[in-house]
Amino acid sequence: MTAPFSFTLKARDGNARAGAVATPRGVIRTPAFMPVGTGATVKAMFPEDVAASGADIILANTYHLMLRPGAERIAKLGGLHQFMHWQKPILTDSGGYQVMSLAKLRRIDEQGVTFQSHIDGATVELTPERAIEVQCLLGADIQMVLDECTPFPATHAEARSSMELSMRWAERSKQAFQRMAAPGQALFGIVQGSVYPDLREQSAGVLQDIGFDGYAVGGLAVGEGQAAMLDTVAVATSVLPEDRPRYLMGVGTPEDLLEAIARGIDMFDCVMPTRSGRHNQAFTWGGRLNLRNAKYAEDPNPLDAESSCPAARYSRAYLHHLVKSGEVLGAMLLSWANVQFYQELMARAREAIDRRAFAAYAEDVARRYSASNDGEEE
Amino acid sequence: MTAPFSFTLKARDGNARAGAVATPRGVIRTPAFMPVGTGATVKAMFPEDVAASGADIILANTYHLMLRPGAERIAKLGGLHQFMHWQKPILTDSGGYQVMSLAKLRRIDEQGVTFQSHIDGATVELTPERAIEVQCLLGADIQMVLDECTPFPATHAEARSSMELSMRWAERSKQAFQRMAAPGQALFGIVQGSVYPDLREQSAGVLQDIGFDGYAVGGLAVGEGQAAMLDTVAVATSVLPEDRPRYLMGVGTPEDLLEAIARGIDMFDCVMPTRSGRHNQAFTWGGRLNLRNAKYAEDPNPLDAESSCPAARYSRAYLHHLVKSGEVLGAMLLSWANVQFYQELMARAREAIDRRAFAAYAEDVARRYSASNDGEEE
Repeated sequence: MTAPFSFTLKARDGNARAGAVATPRGVIRTPAFMPVGTGATVKAMFPEDVAASGADIILANTYHLMLRPGAERIAKLGGLHQFMHWQKPILTDSGGYQVMSLAKLRRIDEQGVTFQSHIDGATVELTPERAIEVQCLLGADIQMVLDECTPFPATHAEARSSMELSMRWAERSKQAFQRMAAPGQALFGIVQGSVYPDLREQSAGVLQDIGFDGYAVGGLAVGEGQAAMLDTVAVATSVLPEDRPRYLMGVGTPEDLLEAIARGIDMFDCVMPTRSGRHNQAFTWGGRLNLRNAKYAEDPNPLDAESSCPAARYSRAYLHHLVKSGEVLGAMLLSWANVQFYQELMARAREAIDRRAFAAYAEDVARRYSASNDGEEE
Repeated sequence: MTAPFSFTLKARDGNARAGAVATPRGVIRTPAFMPVGTGATVKAMFPEDVAASGADIILANTYHLMLRPGAERIAKLGGLHQFMHWQKPILTDSGGYQVMSLAKLRRIDEQGVTFQSHIDGATVELTPERAIEVQCLLGADIQMVLDECTPFPATHAEARSSMELSMRWAERSKQAFQRMAAPGQALFGIVQGSVYPDLREQSAGVLQDIGFDGYAVGGLAVGEGQAAMLDTVAVATSVLPEDRPRYLMGVGTPEDLLEAIARGIDMFDCVMPTRSGRHNQAFTWGGRLNLRNAKYAEDPNPLDAESSCPAARYSRAYLHHLVKSGEVLGAMLLSWANVQFYQELMARAREAIDRRAFAAYAEDVARRYSASNDGEEE
């Protein structure tokens, strides 16, 4: 018999929560950070190193995989886990966000969204039902409802109309999921409503009436700024059920993550650690480093003496040399070190919540990051 | 006391030899293939995986490293081994070949070669003495004399003049090495003379009079074709001493390697496994594969069921997806699989020589490679 999907709350510290999501493919310790494996690969990393970094789950992108290599092809090859050599849980987004940010010639109507593939220009239709079908073909352990990512800024009327469409799609997604999903798979709803508290509350209420295994907060980190984002997170978590995991989509910096945990978020995904790793940026316990910076040319110190990551033991001088020379190994080492840093950030958050010392921990990290920061990439 | 450099011949099969080169940093089993770590990195590979592939030694490029990050800088940072996290032996070429193939505005005279850096246009002088100094600063275990890589084709007179210059440089290199090298470090001479047997014999004689720890055959794989290359190798090895390792520089395909081993070569280096790996090509026990080929799109078979490399366990369909998508992981997996294939090719060669079954082994590999070959990259 397949183990069901469940969430156990283990400790609280203020609104911060530590817990565990149980799935048939393993336990996800929360707060959890999911490295992003867009096209069936966490970029520039071996899956063994992603697992060894402490990641209990990764995210993959429905939009990218349905276009290339195709969901039916992955199903034929045994599913996404087997395809990409990752045996722990996988969460797939529904594709809605990527359709808005990557695809061209979009048409959104009640039925769904029609768009042109950014790869070959082919016309593709994505409906709530198809999004679930694709995620089932991939074999995703946690699936997301199709939603419309409300553009920012949006008027209250625009945001309400968009949110209400997403809620109708959420209902259809749930019905499709009940028809198609395998035992132990889970479906998360996504709270929308832009930066309007009343719409976020309304959205959370509708989703709870439908009933989901977990609840995401979507449509943020789209230009609203950190303060508005965190306020919106606080509104959403205040009305979401205690006994379900809460997932803040597409966020963010180390400071963002800890602020969101303080407001009751349990799960995160973001391309930041891997994308930064391919652009000479390192997240370390000493702050954010830009390895292209000439000051590292003869710095014999390891990237991060406080990290447990094998990649963080290489000298800053060597990493500087690699990134200046455009060597692939630079991206490999920095991606690895960054992914592992994000996992350590979550591990220490879980411990701090357990000790009821989360606020002090978050302050310490914020201080490290404000004191030492090489700034964004050149 | 530092262990000296030595070569022990362990088995012979015809002209093929199996042996061991002992160095203070470890034993190099021969025939040996040295992966190329041009800029202090075997491209797209972690050094741990290079070591685990079976490589006892890697090659690094004096030319590249003296220009970036600079030999003095690497020395200051503890030497090349520490800089790049590689504790086994390193062989460095002298830079002569790269000056000819990469640098601009070269001027060659008796003193040495003056050229413009391909990185920043700076004027750089490389003499036999400076080439040794750079290699000592890097801390190379096996160093090479500076030579002039004779262009192909060359008349007999041109080839003789070029070879004679290289021999005078070899003498100066030896003198510089005796002044500067650390105990246990070794210096190899390089036989030149284009495709002219009399010049190759003459060159080998001069080098033996000077006396080196090993002898390389240089100036090949520059357009002369496989038959002329192998004939020249046979001439050179016939007059080189039995009790020193012989190194064929910059060669080549699996078939080239086995043909050269049959003619008495002990050591090789080539960018082919790593460069091919970054260009969708795989060397496998089933032949050469081009993973971009559409026939692999739904091929669930592992890249190479006969390989012991972890990278070779991924399906051809997955690798096809990665290379079609331009994912870094494709280059990482194919480079790793190719480097390990080359090591397995050498390991089986050593075993075959030991069993006096080398000819049958070489024929078997040649058959595998002629029967299944997707051709060069698209």
